[in-house]
Amino acid sequence: MPATPWSTSMTLDVPIVNAPMGGVAGGALAAAVSRAGGLGMIGMGSAATVSALDEQLTHVRGLERPFGIGLIGWGVRSRPALLETALAAGPALLSVSFGDDWPWVARAHDAGCVTATQVADLHSAQRAVDAGVQVLVARGAEGGGHGRPTVGTLTLLTEILDRVTVPVLAAGGIASGRALSAVLATGAAGAWIGTAFAACKESLLPDAARAVMIAAGDTDTVTTRAFDVALGYPWPATLPERVLRNTFTDRWDGREDELDSAAIDVLHTAIDEQDYRVAPINAGQGVGEVRTVEPAAAVIERLCGHGG
Amino acid sequence: MPATPWSTSMTLDVPIVNAPMGGVAGGALAAAVSRAGGLGMIGMGSAATVSALDEQLTHVRGLERPFGIGLIGWGVRSRPALLETALAAGPALLSVSFGDDWPWVARAHDAGCVTATQVADLHSAQRAVDAGVQVLVARGAEGGGHGRPTVGTLTLLTEILDRVTVPVLAAGGIASGRALSAVLATGAAGAWIGTAFAACKESLLPDAARAVMIAAGDTDTVTTRAFDVALGYPWPATLPERVLRNTFTDRWDGREDELDSAAIDVLHTAIDEQDYRVAPINAGQGVGEVRTVEPAAAVIERLCGHGG
Repeated sequence: MPATPWSTSMTLDVPIVNAPMGGVAGGALAAAVSRAGGLGMIGMGSAATVSALDEQLTHVRGLERPFGIGLIGWGVRSRPALLETALAAGPALLSVSFGDDWPWVARAHDAGCVTATQVADLHSAQRAVDAGVQVLVARGAEGGGHGRPTVGTLTLLTEILDRVTVPVLAAGGIASGRALSAVLATGAAGAWIGTAFAACKESLLPDAARAVMIAAGDTDTVTTRAFDVALGYPWPATLPERVLRNTFTDRWDGREDELDSAAIDVLHTAIDEQDYRVAPINAGQGVGEVRTVEPAAAVIERLCGHGG
Repeated sequence: MPATPWSTSMTLDVPIVNAPMGGVAGGALAAAVSRAGGLGMIGMGSAATVSALDEQLTHVRGLERPFGIGLIGWGVRSRPALLETALAAGPALLSVSFGDDWPWVARAHDAGCVTATQVADLHSAQRAVDAGVQVLVARGAEGGGHGRPTVGTLTLLTEILDRVTVPVLAAGGIASGRALSAVLATGAAGAWIGTAFAACKESLLPDAARAVMIAAGDTDTVTTRAFDVALGYPWPATLPERVLRNTFTDRWDGREDELDSAAIDVLHTAIDEQDYRVAPINAGQGVGEVRTVEPAAAVIERLCGHGG
């Protein structure tokens, strides 16, 4: 099994972390990833609440394996109790992304927790290091969900590794053993993997969404603000999300200003009915490598089987 | 020094090929790359002529190292003499990209030449294999110059390697030793590198353009059709080019329909005067790793020094 100095220091068996995808990476997925030797992360997205976090944390109580929690910058800022609840659960890693103020870093270090944050270019990488963040997640433009779609994973990862000394996790488009081998060969501390775990049976996704992911190919994703604008989510314009292209993105991506209440009603109905011809599914470009619904442990085994 | 079964079969010392960048990768660059143990490629872009190719070929006569030639699909179709001139020069590799008819493949094989083509997704990879092309160039969205900016290099490369048996060269954003190590770890046959060689002293670029490349960072590129539309180049809308962002792209990218003759005059003047605040420079996202003007041999040494 592959290992890195960082994965060993975190007492992991494999240098694999599941991305803390809001609404997808709940406690069941985190527990499954951690039990399989990786670092399972519980994700709280833009809809984070203390009670939602508490509910997911029940899955990792008594786990006796390290796990982590991922929060969003403005969630931590507007709901300080979220950070306290997260730290009280004893995560090995706390990731807070999409913010630009850093008081959470010292607070997490005081609690004995390793800190991480996502970065999308060299400038933000350096800023995070300067703020004392201990682990960078180099999230390339291929990645699913929200993020700044600027630099591709390979370029981003290698240029950051050339310039910082902290451990760097590679994120964006890593969904195969070959890709894991590639990022480990660069000197990355590990891989931060979303899409391949989102399709796992332990994720919070509905089965219908998993089926759509399995059928999707490499060119079936698009970065868009259409869903965020339609649903009134507070993601800034600089942070679109990569989703599976569907009739809603075909119609509204780039025309968000024209969204009308009829379109928004249709979207809400589609979400309620799990109709993914219209409703959103976050996915990175690695979705083409996701060809079957597996347990998280099988994904880890598959990724580690390339001889990396 | 790193090697792969493919690089050994091609009698190369290192699994590195310079991308045949039209107007940039002339005979001097190709000869320098081949002398340093890689596969030097002469590139003929959309302005290809037999006499221009003949002129560049003088640099590789008597080289006693393998070299290659890269042409563009519609160039081969509209000027059959280009293909004949290229094959008569005895290249070890002929790459023809951006076309969808394949008579050149059999013609090249008859001439004893290995064939390659760029692909941007799984579908085009399979089509090229079906057409008998012997080597695929998996060109990710990070790459400079013209190409279909769809899938990122890491994802594209690994998904193609998982599905084809022909050698696959990795292209797009590879400008460091770490990145070379990464793509070789996936099982790639080698790396196809543009930007890092474009900045070399042996390229056909003016010194002023090289200086701008050296100063550019990871987020300073953009894919655009603005220059092609303004200059009347015959690139289709599906094949924009990745360039260094400048005042011209800031003003005209996405507004190509509004280009007027005054703007086009300004562009022509800027090109004549090597004023790259306005004139185009092709570059991939790896440009941030290009920090000094070096000979091609030094680039190869730097890339191979990571222990890959």
